Amino acid sequence: MTERLDAYRDRLRGFLPDLLGVRLLEVSPERVTAELEVRRELCTVPGILHGGAIMAFADTLGAVATVATIPPGAGTTTIESKTNFFAPGREGTVVRGETTPLHKGRRTMTWQTRVTSADGRLLALVTQTQMILPAEGG
Amino acid sequence: MTERLDAYRDRLRGFLPDLLGVRLLEVSPERVTAELEVRRELCTVPGILHGGAIMAFADTLGAVATVATIPPGAGTTTIESKTNFFAPGREGTVVRGETTPLHKGRRTMTWQTRVTSADGRLLALVTQTQMILPAEGG
Amino acid sequence: MTERLDAYRDRLRGFLPDLLGVRLLEVSPERVTAELEVRRELCTVPGILHGGAIMAFADTLGAVATVATIPPGAGTTTIESKTNFFAPGREGTVVRGETTPLHKGRRTMTWQTRVTSADGRLLALVTQTQMILPAEGG
Amino acid sequence: MTERLDAYRDRLRGFLPDLLGVRLLEVSPERVTAELEVRRELCTVPGILHGGAIMAFADTLGAVATVATIPPGAGTTTIESKTNFFAPGREGTVVRGETTPLHKGRRTMTWQTRVTSADGRLLALVTQTQMILPAEGG
Repeated sequence: MTERLDAYRDRLRGFLPDLLGVRLLEVSPERVTAELEVRRELCTVPGILHGGAIMAFADTLGAVATVATIPPGAGTTTIESKTNFFAPGREGTVVRGETTPLHKGRRTMTWQTRVTSADGRLLALVTQTQMILPAEGG
Repeated sequence: MTERLDAYRDRLRGFLPDLLGVRLLEVSPERVTAELEVRRELCTVPGILHGGAIMAFADTLGAVATVATIPPGAGTTTIESKTNFFAPGREGTVVRGETTPLHKGRRTMTWQTRVTSADGRLLALVTQTQMILPAEGG
Repeated sequence: MTERLDAYRDRLRGFLPDLLGVRLLEVSPERVTAELEVRRELCTVPGILHGGAIMAFADTLGAVATVATIPPGAGTTTIESKTNFFAPGREGTVVRGETTPLHKGRRTMTWQTRVTSADGRLLALVTQTQMILPAEGG
Repeated sequence: MTERLDAYRDRLRGFLPDLLGVRLLEVSPERVTAELEVRRELCTVPGILHGGAIMAFADTLGAVATVATIPPGAGTTTIESKTNFFAPGREGTVVRGETTPLHKGRRTMTWQTRVTSADGRLLALVTQTQMILPAEGG
């Protein structure tokens, strides 16, 4: 399992999740969790995490969750994403994301990600739909 | 006007839009435009711009548009954002965002951002609602 | 409590929820539940509940939940609503809606409604934001 | 063309759009328009059109637009829908819906519907994604 988590972490290396500092904690077809440290450069004004960072964080987790679910060789792309923001992420803290499935279809999957503060407050809720791209020749 | 554009650019310095490389081109209460170069570190897999970068790009523009509209001293926060993705942004190209108002209310404003490729193809459409936070003592 | 449920039912009389046949089962600030019988005239094609009926059903529940939460005299209006559809509601069955809070703020509240079939399958998920309109002179 | 419009109207007969009173005015793969009279039984409180009626109205138009675009025999289902509400529809008036394409893909299509008052004010904007269901044996 640790080996598998490392494989998912490797996939993110050098891409946006890496630039943001997304740290995957757990990857399974039923649940993906991760952390993000609220550094100044992820903020929108001093002290407040940028909503875009929250959406990018969640989008990453939903894509990882889809990859963890679909057959090897199949691909995925986000076709739509909706976020409601409830409270600010604070600079210097660590926010947590937890992604769980709403729907796992053959053509699409829908995931919901709760982004929470260290003390468990719901900061944002993200619902996203992933299109499944069948493996070539599949 | 150039001075004013510089002031908006300065507000982004050191924060997420700067990390992503958002370049504001035009800021007015009726239209905000910007560019984003699709660098490898903004991608999700080699060659393809991360959906999270698109959402963060648009969220920045909607917030700038709100600030350009509200009275000095008032603040704003994104309360919800919806994105539909239509086509991939390609690494090595420059994508463009254009934000225009759908609604300018006293309590909320809603903006729509078209993200397009250099050849004008619609890559994503983002609709977001900004809450207006009145100036202290206002 | 029964009396209070009757008061909520009375508020819907003669309006869209009545036309659709929404039956409130439970109303509290933490949970609203209701049923809807899938009659032919609520369908989109023979046998399949119209997505619009699902959205109207959920919108009703979110508004009732808000009214159950805010002070007497205050009002509410839906400012945005997002629905993901997962499976069809079948003609001749009864679908159920359950609305719970995601966020209860002073200016806005956000509710999530699960619409399920009689056997518990998730048919649709609706997330909506209600603006709170303060009581006159409040 | 008139004949074709009649065919679309016939498809709605006896179903939810008929119950609501949706009147199709124009159907083409590039544009669908319709009217809805704001009767008391479509309201949420006296005088104000129910948000659910607006969403059902738009959902109908997006589905009709999809059917007008896809090959005969193919089907469609709404997979997600997002609405922003800006101003109330008034009882006794007629609201108008205009649906235009954002994206026409092989697997999905995305439509945007502007719902306006008789004097052209934007009341709501609906963005919805339709899944294309290939014809049997197609």
